[in-house]
Amino acid sequence: MLSADRLSLNTATVKEQWNLEQCVEGCLRHGFGGIAPWRNLIHDIGLKKSAKLIRDSGLEVSGLCRGGWFTAEGSLTPAVLDDNRRAVDEAAAIGAKCLVMVVGGLADQSKDIASARQMVEEGLAITLEYARENQVSIAIEPLHPMYAADRACVNTMRQTLDLCDRLGEGIGAAVDVYHVWWDPELQDQIKRAGKNRLKAFHICDWLVPTQDMLTDRGMMGDGVIDISGIRAMVEGEGFDGLNEVEIFSALNWWKRDADEVMQVIIERAKNC
Amino acid sequence: MLSADRLSLNTATVKEQWNLEQCVEGCLRHGFGGIAPWRNLIHDIGLKKSAKLIRDSGLEVSGLCRGGWFTAEGSLTPAVLDDNRRAVDEAAAIGAKCLVMVVGGLADQSKDIASARQMVEEGLAITLEYARENQVSIAIEPLHPMYAADRACVNTMRQTLDLCDRLGEGIGAAVDVYHVWWDPELQDQIKRAGKNRLKAFHICDWLVPTQDMLTDRGMMGDGVIDISGIRAMVEGEGFDGLNEVEIFSALNWWKRDADEVMQVIIERAKNC
Repeated sequence: MLSADRLSLNTATVKEQWNLEQCVEGCLRHGFGGIAPWRNLIHDIGLKKSAKLIRDSGLEVSGLCRGGWFTAEGSLTPAVLDDNRRAVDEAAAIGAKCLVMVVGGLADQSKDIASARQMVEEGLAITLEYARENQVSIAIEPLHPMYAADRACVNTMRQTLDLCDRLGEGIGAAVDVYHVWWDPELQDQIKRAGKNRLKAFHICDWLVPTQDMLTDRGMMGDGVIDISGIRAMVEGEGFDGLNEVEIFSALNWWKRDADEVMQVIIERAKNC
Repeated sequence: MLSADRLSLNTATVKEQWNLEQCVEGCLRHGFGGIAPWRNLIHDIGLKKSAKLIRDSGLEVSGLCRGGWFTAEGSLTPAVLDDNRRAVDEAAAIGAKCLVMVVGGLADQSKDIASARQMVEEGLAITLEYARENQVSIAIEPLHPMYAADRACVNTMRQTLDLCDRLGEGIGAAVDVYHVWWDPELQDQIKRAGKNRLKAFHICDWLVPTQDMLTDRGMMGDGVIDISGIRAMVEGEGFDGLNEVEIFSALNWWKRDADEVMQVIIERAKNC
C-alpha cells in the first residue's frame, strides 16, 4: 500500500505529454512526493531555470536520468567524460539523490562484451571521483540482459555490486523491478547491497506478451512482477527512498492524457 | 572454423519448410553430422517410423527438443508428467544424446517465480529418475531472462548448475549462445559445469535490433555474439558434441528455401 507521497514521477512515464514544468506541476497537483527528471527536459529550459523550478517545488528528486553510455564512441573520449561530468553538475544543481547510470552496451561493430565492461568500469571510476567532489551519489542501473548489446552491459545486481566493491564509496545500485525481477539471486544480492548501496527503486511491470523490447513496459498490476515482494526486500534493508515510477509505453500510456496516467499510477500503487 | 560434419540441424531452423524426412535428407545432402528434431515432427509420422528414419540415416542426434513445461497446468499434473515420460521414451528411441528441457515459466495468473522454480525442480527430479532408468541424459536449457515469465524460469548457467548439483547425476545444461552470451559469469559457470554437465551446445546470433522476442534470432555472423569465443569455453572443458544450429526466424530464414539456409549455415560456420 503506497500512498502518492511515497511516489516519484520519472518523467519518461509522460515523455510524450509533459515538459519539465508540466511534470513538476503534475506531481504537485497529484500529491506525488518527488520527481526524477530526464536530462533532455532540463536541457530544454536550461539548468538554472530547471534547478529553481524543482527546488522551489519542494519535491524530492529521487534521481537524475541519466549518465553513462561510456561505450558510445568506442573509447572514453573527452566528449563522453565531459557529458558525464555535466550530468554530475546537473544532479548537484537540482539536488538529486543520485545520478542514474545507464552504462552503454557493446561498442559499434564490437562483439567483445568483456572489453565493453572494462571501459564502463574505467568511465565509472573517473566520473565517480568527480561526483564525490560534488557530493553526488552514483547509482548504476543494471539493465535487463536483453539490453546487453545496445544499452547497458551491466545486467545483474551481482555484477553491479562487484563493480561497486571495486569502486568504493559513493556508488550503488538503482533497482528497477523491470530489469531484475527474474533474477534467482535477487533477494541475496539486495541483502548484500544493504542500505548503503541501494540508491533508488523503480517500479513498473513486465507485460506478457511484451510487444516491444524497449517501449512496451507495463503499468503496475498489468504484468507479472511481484512488486510488493521486491519492495519488501529493499525496504527490509532500510531503503527509505521514494518509489520511482518509470514506464516506457509507446503503445499505451504515452498515448493517454497525463493526468489520467497520474491517477492510474496512484490507484495501482495502493496494491504495490 | 567449423566444418559441416561438426554441425547438427535443429529442425526448428527450417520449421516452415521441411518435415522430418526432408530434414534428414537435407542433413545428409549437405553433409551435416547430426540432427536435433522437435517432437512435433516425430509425432507427425509416428515414433517408430521416425526412429527408423533417423537411425538408418547414421546422423548423430545431438538432442531431442523438448521436454519440460512443468508449470503449464499450475501443478505437476499426470498429464504434465506423462508428457515428460513420453519425451524420455522418444529420446531413447531415436538415440538422442540428451532430452532438452524448456522448463516452463510462471503458472497462469501467478506472480510467484520462486514457486514456479520449485515446481520445475520437483518435475525435473521425477522425470530424471525415469530418464536414468532409460539411459537418457537430461539437458536443462537455461533460457534468456526475457523468457522468464512465459517460457522458462531457469535463466542462467549458475541457476542451472545449482539445480544439477541438487539433482545429481544424469542431468546437465544445454548451452545456447543466444540465451547466455550476455552473462558476466559465463566463463566461470562453463568451467564449473565441466564436461560432465555440458550436454549440448546451440548456436545462432543476437540481432541488433531484435524485432521480436521469440522469432527474430539471427544467423551466425549477423549479430553480436562471439560464438567462437563461447565455443572455445565449452570445448576447453572437453565438450566434443556437435554444434547444433537453432534459429527461430519468422522474418527471414523461415521464408527462404531450406537448401539455401543449409548452405548459408555451412558458410557462416566457417567463421564460428
